[in-house]
Amino acid sequence: MSPTILFAAPADRWAQYETPLTEALDATGLDYRLGLDLPPEEVDYIIYAPKSGLTDFTPFPRLKAVLNLWAGVEGVVSNPTLRVPLTRMVDSEGLTQGMVEYVTGHVLRHHLGMDKYIGNTTPAWDQVAPPLAQERPVTILGLGALGHACARQLTSLGFPVTGWSRTPRSLDGLRCLHGAEGLTEALSGAQILVLLLPHTAETENLLDASALDLLPKGAVLINPGRGALVEDTALLAALDSGQVAQATLDVFRIEPLPADHPYWQHPRVTVTPHIAAETRPASAARVIADNIRRNEAGEPLCHVVDRDAGY
Amino acid sequence: MSPTILFAAPADRWAQYETPLTEALDATGLDYRLGLDLPPEEVDYIIYAPKSGLTDFTPFPRLKAVLNLWAGVEGVVSNPTLRVPLTRMVDSEGLTQGMVEYVTGHVLRHHLGMDKYIGNTTPAWDQVAPPLAQERPVTILGLGALGHACARQLTSLGFPVTGWSRTPRSLDGLRCLHGAEGLTEALSGAQILVLLLPHTAETENLLDASALDLLPKGAVLINPGRGALVEDTALLAALDSGQVAQATLDVFRIEPLPADHPYWQHPRVTVTPHIAAETRPASAARVIADNIRRNEAGEPLCHVVDRDAGY
Repeated sequence: MSPTILFAAPADRWAQYETPLTEALDATGLDYRLGLDLPPEEVDYIIYAPKSGLTDFTPFPRLKAVLNLWAGVEGVVSNPTLRVPLTRMVDSEGLTQGMVEYVTGHVLRHHLGMDKYIGNTTPAWDQVAPPLAQERPVTILGLGALGHACARQLTSLGFPVTGWSRTPRSLDGLRCLHGAEGLTEALSGAQILVLLLPHTAETENLLDASALDLLPKGAVLINPGRGALVEDTALLAALDSGQVAQATLDVFRIEPLPADHPYWQHPRVTVTPHIAAETRPASAARVIADNIRRNEAGEPLCHVVDRDAGY
Repeated sequence: MSPTILFAAPADRWAQYETPLTEALDATGLDYRLGLDLPPEEVDYIIYAPKSGLTDFTPFPRLKAVLNLWAGVEGVVSNPTLRVPLTRMVDSEGLTQGMVEYVTGHVLRHHLGMDKYIGNTTPAWDQVAPPLAQERPVTILGLGALGHACARQLTSLGFPVTGWSRTPRSLDGLRCLHGAEGLTEALSGAQILVLLLPHTAETENLLDASALDLLPKGAVLINPGRGALVEDTALLAALDSGQVAQATLDVFRIEPLPADHPYWQHPRVTVTPHIAAETRPASAARVIADNIRRNEAGEPLCHVVDRDAGY
């Protein structure tokens, strides 16, 4: 068992990942070969990042699996030349934890009305305390590893959390809804709405004008999921009418978000540059090394993408 | 058992508290009398708020206890005419929960570096994710009901939390330090420092220039405790030198904070108008009614103030 592992990613990623991947692979005990430039006919595994430049998997006859470096697989899942299992990153140590911190922080920021005080220099002493979390219903669309972890943390803070997923889920202490009817109910009660769905054909533009209209007036949107979940013109209209009071967006259809995009200037939009959940090299490298070890040992791969579902 | 209960507070408080107190006292089954204006010689209990105007307890010969409506008792604890037990508010349902939300929210805000993005309209796409909570040590000074509840929530988010108290404490999953030597250690490791101490002769100006100097350079201060814990000129100097990167202050020596106070204009200070933890009338009324019921039934009072310690 001496697998050959190709690292297919933009050049700057290698500087970040060479040491963590080497350490993690060394720890598995495998006699492996890892590199950026290896003969295609010898490659057993590809560690894959978007914008790697690699779009044709045909020249890799021995390929056993493609291990995506990120959680989102929309850049590779529909590639017709890919005929081996594709796994996606579920890095609970780094990526999931980072997402929990971002979502909890921004939910509390909107809940507490912090923006009114940050940067304020007007001597205003208006002692209106916010309601308690128990009076602030939060809905999370998407109950995968990220959505579920965020729901747990927000529940522990006292928020009444509703989770929605495409297919039925049953999760401890969480009100779970699903399907089209469930979506209407999940949106209509959400004072704060968090998007943590994957980008698929079914979820694209899920937050269109009619979905945004289902929210209670003055709801807040937080999108650290995928940019294409939101129909941008509908969101801008809902912000202008007051239907949506504020939006905090971390992901966009085009990234970096173009300098002339109206989100940058909109007074009720906060843009963060796709930093909510970053795969951390050390923990991500361990996830990938362990998956290669599993496959080499004849154990099932973890986090295999359902290519029909798209995630 | 038909106790007479005087509500001693500024007039606007009566509007807030009459219904909740009546409901909570009715629920105890006591045959009570409650009012703003009762013959002093008939009063058994005083529900007491700061600025009530009542400073002489001598005319109340039957007085059994004074029940403070807030957590802070500095306005009454040293009153030499008070010779009966004094209790303070420990309202876990409202006050403690509100404090947990405020502290968790502002710790996450500073941890995630949110201020850089809120209100920003410059198209900057600088993808530097913050470190994970596990790399951000937080110290809480004060391990009473508020400090302990905040420590638990921050620990559940992954922050390494150190708690400090005057006397030794041992609390599950928390690094507890105490005394003068413990304070030095607690401050020297704190990237984010939260003040939740009572205001006593010993804690006044605890955060002076030498204490602020013990913090790692660039630490953040969050004070939802008491204004007098901080020596204001020392904090302003530390903010100007960069020793303290940011301060979020909810409490002040003089409230409302005077319009010409430098905190209002300081670019690295966020002022909130004493809203971190508000006693909520419904839950606070239940705490007070239950304490009166306990005393009438011969059970010990809860949350009795140690008048030597001052809290």
